[in-house]
Amino acid sequence: MTARRLVAEALGTGLLVTAVVGSGIMADRLTADVALALLANTIATAAALLVLITIFAPVSGAHFNPAVTLVFAVRREVAPILALGFVAAQITGGVAGTLLAHAMFDLPIWQLSTTPRSGTGQWIAEGVATFGLVLTILGAIHARANVALMVAAYIAAAYWFTASTSFANPAVSLARAFTETFAGIRPVDLPAFWLAQIAGASVAAALAGWLFRPAK
Amino acid sequence: MTARRLVAEALGTGLLVTAVVGSGIMADRLTADVALALLANTIATAAALLVLITIFAPVSGAHFNPAVTLVFAVRREVAPILALGFVAAQITGGVAGTLLAHAMFDLPIWQLSTTPRSGTGQWIAEGVATFGLVLTILGAIHARANVALMVAAYIAAAYWFTASTSFANPAVSLARAFTETFAGIRPVDLPAFWLAQIAGASVAAALAGWLFRPAK
Amino acid sequence: MTARRLVAEALGTGLLVTAVVGSGIMADRLTADVALALLANTIATAAALLVLITIFAPVSGAHFNPAVTLVFAVRREVAPILALGFVAAQITGGVAGTLLAHAMFDLPIWQLSTTPRSGTGQWIAEGVATFGLVLTILGAIHARANVALMVAAYIAAAYWFTASTSFANPAVSLARAFTETFAGIRPVDLPAFWLAQIAGASVAAALAGWLFRPAK
Amino acid sequence: MTARRLVAEALGTGLLVTAVVGSGIMADRLTADVALALLANTIATAAALLVLITIFAPVSGAHFNPAVTLVFAVRREVAPILALGFVAAQITGGVAGTLLAHAMFDLPIWQLSTTPRSGTGQWIAEGVATFGLVLTILGAIHARANVALMVAAYIAAAYWFTASTSFANPAVSLARAFTETFAGIRPVDLPAFWLAQIAGASVAAALAGWLFRPAK
Repeated sequence: MTARRLVAEALGTGLLVTAVVGSGIMADRLTADVALALLANTIATAAALLVLITIFAPVSGAHFNPAVTLVFAVRREVAPILALGFVAAQITGGVAGTLLAHAMFDLPIWQLSTTPRSGTGQWIAEGVATFGLVLTILGAIHARANVALMVAAYIAAAYWFTASTSFANPAVSLARAFTETFAGIRPVDLPAFWLAQIAGASVAAALAGWLFRPAK
Repeated sequence: MTARRLVAEALGTGLLVTAVVGSGIMADRLTADVALALLANTIATAAALLVLITIFAPVSGAHFNPAVTLVFAVRREVAPILALGFVAAQITGGVAGTLLAHAMFDLPIWQLSTTPRSGTGQWIAEGVATFGLVLTILGAIHARANVALMVAAYIAAAYWFTASTSFANPAVSLARAFTETFAGIRPVDLPAFWLAQIAGASVAAALAGWLFRPAK
Repeated sequence: MTARRLVAEALGTGLLVTAVVGSGIMADRLTADVALALLANTIATAAALLVLITIFAPVSGAHFNPAVTLVFAVRREVAPILALGFVAAQITGGVAGTLLAHAMFDLPIWQLSTTPRSGTGQWIAEGVATFGLVLTILGAIHARANVALMVAAYIAAAYWFTASTSFANPAVSLARAFTETFAGIRPVDLPAFWLAQIAGASVAAALAGWLFRPAK
Repeated sequence: MTARRLVAEALGTGLLVTAVVGSGIMADRLTADVALALLANTIATAAALLVLITIFAPVSGAHFNPAVTLVFAVRREVAPILALGFVAAQITGGVAGTLLAHAMFDLPIWQLSTTPRSGTGQWIAEGVATFGLVLTILGAIHARANVALMVAAYIAAAYWFTASTSFANPAVSLARAFTETFAGIRPVDLPAFWLAQIAGASVAAALAGWLFRPAK
């Protein structure tokens, strides 16, 4: 049933964003060491991804990410009209997730980030981050491995090895523009992030189509 | 046999509380950085949950949590009279777990917390925390995933993304009222926590009934 | 073949001790924050346990611990004469593991610890720690779960929730008496630790015999 | 197809090095506490290993390491000519991985390390580190365990318990000579590292041949 799928995408993306933004606020309040804050942010995000992908995968596939939905649409594994619905659900859920984090931490509900995230290094980083994410998903499916665990581990690594801390997700990036806290990004920096993310995802999908061809 | 089930619930809840309270004391003694203390508390709690749920699930189902027992009672998967026994065992075991932590760390055995945990943000946080916990359990069962691992990962995330560090358990909340250490909560703040926890669990159970309906 | 089993017990215990002692030295050198040092120690120890138990279990059962070997001997799953050989191999390997750590870190090979670890709280802690370890092993076997992962997770938690940082192993305790570094223990404090460990293991074995009785 | 295997070895080694070097740069920038930086480095490296070995194992076997390829060549599980191709791919990919990390972090692309890593302790450490890595791989195969998870856990431990932070890989060691950042190594110190790594791998392969003989 389509309604259940859309709710799963909205709820999953929303709780993921709540985990990303909320853990950033909590960590930032408790320590002055930015590496420690990012470590807490990493663990909370990876653990949330593991759980959310595991429980929602049987319902909607657990994309939570327009770049991932695009890849599956191009591979004709999701119909174009359903893909549009998924993206709308991801965006709606994601923004709601930011607002929920603010409500829990007694912060103003509506905020806009002023944190600049721009420059060649950042854009290469987002391209690499999303390339790696899509390669991980398609590679894990090919290897018949636990996709939820692989995505969680990949993002845990990518938070640290990419210069941008690996947003790697257009809907989550948008949701993070609505918070003036640890995890935020200035709205004006979004379009370049989106372009880099779509580019990285596209290259990964093309490469994976050759590299992970099923053995006959 | 019922005696074994009740002992499993009491022992499991007790050791879980010992892990939560004991690791809080240890971390608090070793560092002045509160984020680092919470990180150690997170790792100890998640690891204890993974082990305790794994080894006690075949005996009692490993609820360790009145909100979880309530959900299974409403779903008619646990008889009402057994559910009452479970809750009594969880409370007894939980409080004993706090006392054991005090004994190990050479602290006065009987204490009462004076740590305030109150306010709208905290209550929303406990509602969200318990909503997520019940959604995780029912979703993991539906997905035929490892419930112990999912609960451990969920709590690791929720310690950071909820403003209350995610008690999400009426029996553990009560047990934590008996310690004037890192993990404590003022007794007067308990009723609002319990209400928020039951509310979150109820909403999750209703939503999961629709979202995770078994495919035919 | 018995030789292979004894080598597995010696090598496994040795590398475990190298991990415990070596990571303690490394962490202690790199930070002034004791909680952070214990966290690094925890992660290295848990990861080493996961690997060593996994690869040596098919060869010797991967006890690496006289208290565990005693429990299996009493349960008549290991012959008494082989159990004695196991304990000798564990002690020999364990002490060699300490010496290897010293060699890698350019420290004097032979040392004796002067770190006091004594008192009622410490002894209760060692009893609880070993009780929990044996309960974890027998419970994981009963639940047909991954014993290596459960032991690793249990020790990760117990490093933090027991006041003694959970030695829980007479052979490893002895090996740690030979290092004047982070992980050390004064030789004179060993006998009380051993007694508490054997007591905790015995209670756990008795309880597990009733609690984890196989269903018919 | 050979081309796919070589691309898998190059891409896997490259992304592994990007994770090692990139996370070192990120952590070093965010904190003054070296233990915390090494902890972030550890988590990123272990998570990257888990993912990369999982997704590339069905394509090339996911060696990413000339010492591992050598062991499999000696065991006649990889043809000598293919082994040479693997090593060339690992070296090329590894160095490219370092350059990619520099590009993301807006650093000069070409660098040479001046970090000395030398002395008896370091050489013993590299021998022990690679011995343990090869023992882990062959032991995990013998135990029919998850090799990717075991290698990730082993390296997480070895980062802390070996005095050298466990390079344990001639190709990654070479790639790390090209960065003047946290993870670097002075080129002049490479040959001794390589010798120690090959020696450790050889001893492990010989021992494993006896210890992990398949039961009949």
